[in-house]
Amino acid sequence: MRDPWPSPPPAPAPAGVDLHLDLRLGPGQSGRRAALEHALRDAVRTGRLTPGARLPSSRRLATETGLSRGTVKAAYDQLAAEGYLSARQGSATVVAARTGTPAPAPRSPASAPAAPPRHDLRPGRPDVSTFPTAAWLRATRRALATAPASAYDYGDPRGRIELRTALAEYLGRVRGVSADPERIVVTSGSVQGLALLVRVAASVVAMEDPGLPFHREVVRRAGARVVPLPTDAQGARTDLLAGLAEADAVVVTPAHQFPTGATLHPSRRQALTSWARNGGLVIEDDYDGEFRYDRQPVGAVQGMAPDHVVYLGTTSKTLGPALRLGWMVLPPHLVQPVTDAKRHDDVHTGSLGQLALAELIRDHGYDRHVRACRLRYRRRRDLLATRLAGRYAPAGIAAGLHALVALPPGGPDEIDVRRRAARVGLALETLGEFWHEPSPANPRGLIIGYGASREGAYPAALDALAGVLA
Amino acid sequence: MRDPWPSPPPAPAPAGVDLHLDLRLGPGQSGRRAALEHALRDAVRTGRLTPGARLPSSRRLATETGLSRGTVKAAYDQLAAEGYLSARQGSATVVAARTGTPAPAPRSPASAPAAPPRHDLRPGRPDVSTFPTAAWLRATRRALATAPASAYDYGDPRGRIELRTALAEYLGRVRGVSADPERIVVTSGSVQGLALLVRVAASVVAMEDPGLPFHREVVRRAGARVVPLPTDAQGARTDLLAGLAEADAVVVTPAHQFPTGATLHPSRRQALTSWARNGGLVIEDDYDGEFRYDRQPVGAVQGMAPDHVVYLGTTSKTLGPALRLGWMVLPPHLVQPVTDAKRHDDVHTGSLGQLALAELIRDHGYDRHVRACRLRYRRRRDLLATRLAGRYAPAGIAAGLHALVALPPGGPDEIDVRRRAARVGLALETLGEFWHEPSPANPRGLIIGYGASREGAYPAALDALAGVLA
Repeated sequence: MRDPWPSPPPAPAPAGVDLHLDLRLGPGQSGRRAALEHALRDAVRTGRLTPGARLPSSRRLATETGLSRGTVKAAYDQLAAEGYLSARQGSATVVAARTGTPAPAPRSPASAPAAPPRHDLRPGRPDVSTFPTAAWLRATRRALATAPASAYDYGDPRGRIELRTALAEYLGRVRGVSADPERIVVTSGSVQGLALLVRVAASVVAMEDPGLPFHREVVRRAGARVVPLPTDAQGARTDLLAGLAEADAVVVTPAHQFPTGATLHPSRRQALTSWARNGGLVIEDDYDGEFRYDRQPVGAVQGMAPDHVVYLGTTSKTLGPALRLGWMVLPPHLVQPVTDAKRHDDVHTGSLGQLALAELIRDHGYDRHVRACRLRYRRRRDLLATRLAGRYAPAGIAAGLHALVALPPGGPDEIDVRRRAARVGLALETLGEFWHEPSPANPRGLIIGYGASREGAYPAALDALAGVLA
Repeated sequence: MRDPWPSPPPAPAPAGVDLHLDLRLGPGQSGRRAALEHALRDAVRTGRLTPGARLPSSRRLATETGLSRGTVKAAYDQLAAEGYLSARQGSATVVAARTGTPAPAPRSPASAPAAPPRHDLRPGRPDVSTFPTAAWLRATRRALATAPASAYDYGDPRGRIELRTALAEYLGRVRGVSADPERIVVTSGSVQGLALLVRVAASVVAMEDPGLPFHREVVRRAGARVVPLPTDAQGARTDLLAGLAEADAVVVTPAHQFPTGATLHPSRRQALTSWARNGGLVIEDDYDGEFRYDRQPVGAVQGMAPDHVVYLGTTSKTLGPALRLGWMVLPPHLVQPVTDAKRHDDVHTGSLGQLALAELIRDHGYDRHVRACRLRYRRRRDLLATRLAGRYAPAGIAAGLHALVALPPGGPDEIDVRRRAARVGLALETLGEFWHEPSPANPRGLIIGYGASREGAYPAALDALAGVLA
């Protein structure tokens, strides 16, 4: 289909005047007057024309530029209206007093993405090179073809009903979540869900130790205090929650503890739902629940106590973090306050991505993609175990995109490994980064992510790891 | 292009057993064991199987369902692991104690979108039926075709560099904004930008009176106190800011005051930048700055004092609010704190929409769309003035998507108009909704939005308005 609007005409050659104004027409500008205004603004802003500098009379500038005097006068008036120039009745037009010229912000290494590592075994990332671009584009096209015009307007803060309906079906089927579309709020990734929940309903939050420092910081910035909840091989010590009198909420990763990889033991699940039934808010972060390899996925805890547990899900590990699409399934009493908080945070999450995802789930393209990824990651997990066999036994490998490789005393410690890894360009994370408090008593290990590498690069990354551990 | 993954097999017919389990295979489930687990979970959750209920032995259920005993046992184990069933060594499997069945949340009229009105003259909305679907799809396709794989991964909290670069050029050219890509943060609509800024940098915020109550609530929820800043025909009374000792920030709409439509007078612009230079934070909400009809757009105040003014922009009025794409241009000292706040709020805004918008701006499709909209809205504005001529003179019509129709004493008042409008299905807003405090001294009027209607429906909406005002 052709564009209904013609392209702008090509820009004429720049015209030099003694103000050194660049009168090149930019696309979208409607004429030479606009070009003159633009050039004058630029000259003032960059400091070529300094405060108090006298401009040529409109008559003189008209002669010099070949513009009409009316055009020049209109441009002067416009810039006076904007505060760049100051034109007093009967006297010359001068550059107005103004604030200093802007300095570019320093490049911030903390926020700019770093160059990709040579070998990438960091946890928490899927292989984004497998993003199903063609399927996503098809889903987008189909979604937009059938969307009503109102889909481009402001919408329900909870998100598009098409996606909430598709998610309710999907989450019930795949994760055992008790999901009613009315109780789902679509978020810009699960991090936003966590922040909204804390703002609305938590003041002291128990969080798994070890756990993701970034999530602790999200919770703190949302206004709550964080207390550690120990974990062991059976997952979070939810049996200790009853003793943490101060905590009114807990964040857990039952399907695959981050970062240890443990699956929450049935008795711990019971302890968790009991605590929830007694008034605690359970936030279940099911970040990689779709990926379980050796038996059926363990259903979500939420299904056991849907009136007390919030379920958080995301496309970050299945499709890609860049989509920033997540969801919450809420207990009834939280629907209205969380919806209000979402509305006042960003009104709602962008609708077009939601419509595309709804379409992808509905036509089972999402299932197919997840299945293909599961096979791929399972092979990678097996390769990791094989590659380290005899020396290290990765734990937490029943599910997810990462495993814990314990570093027993006597071998290389975390600092050794990080140093050696840096030398060969291998990015990995050590368990030490995830504890609430550093302590010599903390177990040591590596968190090996088998998602981040591209398919072809993974074996070499494992070779690098084996070398580092040798 | 064909999907690389085959479709799932068609679902077999449901098999009834005496537990009334529905063993229909859902797509994506890997076998009958999954179906059995799903059916059991469902039965427990819906209350058909109550806590303590004894399940048939695995042998008996196997016979009844035609599944192997191993499959049934595996399903029982799985549900025990999930806490639905409880299986003690040597005794029967029973349904575990659990929380009550979920009740669906009440439908919330506050959050669910209402049915569209018959005639729509509400302000703050563009004609979303003009969303350039084909151009957007093309831009998306082109963007994804050239995006590196890393574009699907986590990214810079400030947003994609492609979009920030395109915006810096666009905003400089069209709005006179002094924009460096390093100082732009892309947000999920300008509301998120406002909330982030307040959390980071404001405690008492002066806001225009009248102004949007929703924005006041956003600011309050973000943790600041709101104080009113009066407005008049020359826009916000920024000359009063120096006297508001407590305010450390101000939110203004200089190009087209919302809702009065006034353009900020040059002397007020100077007062605003002076206040900013003395340490106040100016937040310039340029929500409809692209739409100016009778002369060139008034450039952004930010261009005058880029080290002190935050510029907020959005696609909500140009393309459609559903995109949830906005941006902030920040003074250097705010870049790092706002970036950190954004990272901990939702990591970053979804990347694919950003890439599509960058593409649309780069190839001038965005300019063409804005130009076409400007012509359309200008015609509508003229039609409004014509239709009310002789009785009412709409104000604030030099720009934007709405006008203020003052209701002088002696004629119908706001309550009359609202009542009559409701009777004919005409949605409009009255000035009374926008004041910080209700008062009999507040001027009265209607805020007529000429964006919200579809093109063909607009004349009838004006007829309805004329009837209401007759």
